[in-house]
Amino acid sequence: MHKLWEPYPLLKNDLKLVEELINKSIRVKNKKVEATIKRVTQAGGKKLRPAFALLCANIGPKQDDQNKIAIGAALETLHMATLVHDDVIDEAEERHGVVAMHATNDNKYAIYAGDYLFCVCFTILSQHSATLGQLEFNAKSMERILTGELDQLEARFTPPLSVKSYLSRVSGKTAQLFAVSCYSGALVSEATRRQQMIAWNFGHYIGMAFQIMDDILDYTGKEQIVGKPVLADVRQGIYTLPLIYARRENPEVFDNILTKKEALTENDIQYLTELIEKYNGVEKARELAKRYTKKATDHLNKLPQGEYREILNDITTKLLKRTL
Amino acid sequence: MHKLWEPYPLLKNDLKLVEELINKSIRVKNKKVEATIKRVTQAGGKKLRPAFALLCANIGPKQDDQNKIAIGAALETLHMATLVHDDVIDEAEERHGVVAMHATNDNKYAIYAGDYLFCVCFTILSQHSATLGQLEFNAKSMERILTGELDQLEARFTPPLSVKSYLSRVSGKTAQLFAVSCYSGALVSEATRRQQMIAWNFGHYIGMAFQIMDDILDYTGKEQIVGKPVLADVRQGIYTLPLIYARRENPEVFDNILTKKEALTENDIQYLTELIEKYNGVEKARELAKRYTKKATDHLNKLPQGEYREILNDITTKLLKRTL
Repeated sequence: MHKLWEPYPLLKNDLKLVEELINKSIRVKNKKVEATIKRVTQAGGKKLRPAFALLCANIGPKQDDQNKIAIGAALETLHMATLVHDDVIDEAEERHGVVAMHATNDNKYAIYAGDYLFCVCFTILSQHSATLGQLEFNAKSMERILTGELDQLEARFTPPLSVKSYLSRVSGKTAQLFAVSCYSGALVSEATRRQQMIAWNFGHYIGMAFQIMDDILDYTGKEQIVGKPVLADVRQGIYTLPLIYARRENPEVFDNILTKKEALTENDIQYLTELIEKYNGVEKARELAKRYTKKATDHLNKLPQGEYREILNDITTKLLKRTL
Repeated sequence: MHKLWEPYPLLKNDLKLVEELINKSIRVKNKKVEATIKRVTQAGGKKLRPAFALLCANIGPKQDDQNKIAIGAALETLHMATLVHDDVIDEAEERHGVVAMHATNDNKYAIYAGDYLFCVCFTILSQHSATLGQLEFNAKSMERILTGELDQLEARFTPPLSVKSYLSRVSGKTAQLFAVSCYSGALVSEATRRQQMIAWNFGHYIGMAFQIMDDILDYTGKEQIVGKPVLADVRQGIYTLPLIYARRENPEVFDNILTKKEALTENDIQYLTELIEKYNGVEKARELAKRYTKKATDHLNKLPQGEYREILNDITTKLLKRTL
């Protein structure tokens, strides 16, 4: 379990139950494949989405332990499925320090394994009758998330990316699943409709801030800590906020590099790093992440008081400061 | 619409409604992905799975037009999702270590396109409340189908394949979805529990016969008709029934070719074709397909009489005789 949850023993315990349900739900006859899938599911991700859902399951009056665990497990499985497929596409060598699935077992296995995890997600949801009402919701959300990924794919290696289109992509890709997580938690606790919508918005803003921070790490993180080379996204033609902000100040000098036909050299990467620093790309992106975090906590404070709210506040702050 | 359905105007009309619902459910902003998806959805597949579901929706007393169309659309979307991903994987196999699968953009789109189709399937199902009860069922079935695919992947290029393991693979991969199709049709018509199980078994045997016939075509079909080279499966290390039967008669001579480290030459393929003919591989496989068809019609005859049953009988016979 990630150290982020150490201070919250109740939540940590619930997250363990989520982990157990996921493990129990993965039954592949082929033991090699099963082991590969489990290696990804147990790679020690932060389990942020289930954590947000579990915490938001304290908003309303109902304590529905079984369903909140199921929702947590479904959300995490969905997230895993997209990660596995992203890995195939990203050609990422490593994720969370564990060798990516496609590198060990071939891309072919990774495609089916991702498909299998999608199905596990829907199986878990459908086994919990009380959560059935959310299914359409989740399938539709999933469509939006995929559409976000597709937009990103399409946008690769096309430099003139606007802040607006970046944010719209993040909104579809990451923020959507965080919004669903918080909303689902509120739903099982039988929160009021208004509270459900506040939880949705809270999740959305958290997701926006989280993805921006995640993208920033690509520019600032040390290779041995983050587990992938610096500017890995840029190398793959994915241009995120720090670069977009910096490029605004001097498009021409950036485009000279970004529109090269050949792959970027280490010199190019070094030069880009310096340019982004010169034009304060990271600082500006961090500013925006802060603004989203502020919006998130503003929404959070509209929800009923309680320990869960303190924890959500804590985590939100920690996420903004994280270096990993 | 496939000419197979010409003689049955009511069914043909329902299949058109299925097609319309599918088209209506697919909304992708990204034009390249939309094109990938449309290429599959409009490729003029036989729509066998929805057809079997629609016909089996006449077993019980209830006429539930909306839900039977929804189920047909969900089944076909699920089938298409696996087709799209299969294509990516087959292509990777063809390239066999030369060019990475993810080197082409098309494949990247295809992975997301398949994911998107999975979601469309679940969205369609969840939008039809009466079919919600089937969701667990379908997600679980889907898991089994994927597990079948994984087994096939694992089994590639490992010659000593038994008839038993071949049949178990087909059972998971193809027969499962046909069984679900027939069962789902029976379910929406509010057939008795016993009739539902008969429909399931009928679908299972149809699926077994269908896949064996499909595999036979790989050995007998003319390239210009089937649209792919003869023994395409064998070239990819997929050993199906005709080869398995023939190999049983003389394992050594087959294994000399199949265990070669290099790719098979046209001479190897020619030689294999002659060997399979010599040992009557195709005839034996056809015999087994007939036996499964017989089992299917035996089950069919336990269901209430009606026009739907005549049509199912017709189609079953036609499928066994098909050359395409």
